[in-house]
This record gives sequence, structure tokens and C-alpha cells, in this order.
Amino acid sequence: MGTGGGRRVGRPRVAQRPDSGLSPRDELLLAAAELFTTRGYAATTTRAVAERAGMRQASMYHHVAGKEELLAELLESTVTPSLAYARELLADEAAPAGERLWELCRTDVELLCGGPHNLGALYLLPEVRTERFAGFHAVRAELKDAYRQLLAATRAGGALAKSELDLRTDLVFGLIEGVILVHRSDPERPVSVFAEATADAALRIAGV
Amino acid sequence: MGTGGGRRVGRPRVAQRPDSGLSPRDELLLAAAELFTTRGYAATTTRAVAERAGMRQASMYHHVAGKEELLAELLESTVTPSLAYARELLADEAAPAGERLWELCRTDVELLCGGPHNLGALYLLPEVRTERFAGFHAVRAELKDAYRQLLAATRAGGALAKSELDLRTDLVFGLIEGVILVHRSDPERPVSVFAEATADAALRIAGV
Repeated sequence: MGTGGGRRVGRPRVAQRPDSGLSPRDELLLAAAELFTTRGYAATTTRAVAERAGMRQASMYHHVAGKEELLAELLESTVTPSLAYARELLADEAAPAGERLWELCRTDVELLCGGPHNLGALYLLPEVRTERFAGFHAVRAELKDAYRQLLAATRAGGALAKSELDLRTDLVFGLIEGVILVHRSDPERPVSVFAEATADAALRIAGV
Repeated sequence: MGTGGGRRVGRPRVAQRPDSGLSPRDELLLAAAELFTTRGYAATTTRAVAERAGMRQASMYHHVAGKEELLAELLESTVTPSLAYARELLADEAAPAGERLWELCRTDVELLCGGPHNLGALYLLPEVRTERFAGFHAVRAELKDAYRQLLAATRAGGALAKSELDLRTDLVFGLIEGVILVHRSDPERPVSVFAEATADAALRIAGV
């Protein structure tokens, strides 16, 4: 874990990791994901991240500017793939909107719950409210807007007033993000089963 | 904010707070709620909590054992009132189960979103997974079990196999806890409107 070592003289010993085939930057992101979600963001030092990734702290700064950059990139990685997929679904106007909404819900849950670390837990960090994370908030808002557009394109959604459509979008989006909490309480359940059940529930909320 | 002071000699100056009528312990809990949710748990020192509550750090230890005890009590305060109410609802067998489930959802959302601080955000702290917080997890599991029992008492719920009932309970419970995230993105919306809409959505998920 790299926390021992005490008063040993000389350079800090660096953990040897088997060659993962990852770039140094990706090694750092993986290490940060593990440490931020298990020890906490504030409690994790850049040095601990570097050690976990098998490099010295000084080398780390060739690849990333620091802890905030790692957190920003991890947060964005939880929404960017879903947003790209949501844009494809929005463009595919031949398919029924309800089916496209279901598909977005299912894949979004798989993305949020499917990785080795519960990155969704990082959404609620107080640090994430700061301007530094505006990029993440912008992508997340775009993703939510894609949910709104798909919902509005369904027959049930098309009949709603704007405030009601906004509220229902928030409930669907809240369910999807809420699965972060639920998944955590029972991580043994297969993600695919859970993702489909959540998508079904989202359509029931949407009234589709 | 009590962080300045630098090299001033003598005792740290303590912020004077207007007499709130709260006990010292409640002052400390209020201060901890504010600091844990705005600065973060790991980043908040016991000294900062004491100062925010208008007392010296040494005096603080007459009232609480430390930061963990404050966090444990704040976490439990988010579930204990809902559990007490859930027990009343479970005992009230004359009323339709669907109505009782709706009422539990509504009041639970009001409790989670109604306070001045977003205490639900503390659920995802990595520290909360440790044994120290077993009390909170036990109460939360009991509350979830009350949801399950009310759901099972509805006609739709009574027809479900156990694994399906568990899954649906998780989805309802996930929606309720997920509103923590949604509420945070739009804290201006009246909690009462949001709480009723969430309860409606929960019943749609439940199939009631």
C-alpha cells in the first residue's frame, strides 16, 4: 500500500507493477480511481497516486497537472460515453422514442455500475461543486438534456407541460444516478439484470 | 471562518455565536453538518468544528468523542425518523398498503431534502463503509425492509417472487435516495412538490 517505509533513507521505493500495457496517464487514472473511491479524495495524496501507479511523484507531473485533473477526467469518463450514445439515439428518428429512452437508461446504468470502481460516488464530493469541474457539469447537463429530448419525443412525454416534463426528466435521471447507491449495497447482483430492470422502471416513471 | 489567526499568541479566539438555545452537543452537530457537506469530511478538523460551534477544541471533548461520532449521529439522523414513521405505517393495517407506501416515500424525501444541509451526500463517503458506522447501516437496512414489507402488502407486490420483490424494493429505495442527487442539482424547487412527485414515481415503479 506504500504507506510504510518510515525513516528509510534514500529515494522512496516504488511498487513494481506488472506491465499493464496502459499509458502512464491511464495508469495514474486507474490508481486515482481506486484510491479516491476507497480512501477518499481529500485523504489521497498525489504521492500515493504516483506510488500506486508505480512511478515517482516527480514523474507523475509529466503526465498530469495534479489531483484535480485526475478527478475531473474520472468524473467526465462516467458521462462522456453515455452522451455520445445518447446523440446517436437522438439522431435515429426511425426508432420509437420509448425504445431509445429504454436503451439509453440501460447502457447508462451499465456504464455507471460496470466499472471496477464506484466512480459515481465521487459526484457528491464537495470539491466537485467548484468551477474547476465546470466541464463535468456541462457534459452531465447535456446528457440530462438528451434524456429530456427522448422523453419529450414519446407520446406520453409530448403531452406534458414544460415544468412537468422537467420534473419527470429529473425523476428518471435521479433513478439512474440513484442506482449508484443501490448497486453499492448489493454489488453481487449481475449488472445486466439490474440495468434492464432499472430501464423498465424508468419507462414506468416516464409514463411510457 | 476561523481559519486565519496565523501566529497570534495566546488562546485561539473563538467565534461568538448568538445564543441559539441549542445544547452544546447540538451546536456541534449543526456545525459538523455544515462543514462536512461544504468542505468535506476528511478536510474538516475537529478544531474547525469546535470553532464553528463557538467553543474551544478542548471543551468539545466534554460533549462528543470526536469527528466519527458526529458523522455517525448525522447519518443516523437521516434515517431514524423515517424508520419510526415506517413502523407506525406498518402497524396501521386498516389503511391500503399502496397509500402507506406512498406516504413513506413522500415523508422520506422530505426528510432527506428538507434540512439545511445535504446530509445524504455523506452516504457515499468511503469512511462510512467501516465498522464504526454499523449502527447507521443497520437502521438503513431496517428502513429498507419496511419499504419491502409495505410493497409486499400491496396487491402487485404480493404477486411477486422473492427475488423480484427484492429488486423492486431496491429500485424504489434507489429512487428515494437518488433524489439526493437530483435535489442538489435544483435546490430551488419546493421540496413538497418534489416529494409528492417522487412518491408517485415510486408507486409506478412498484407497479401499484
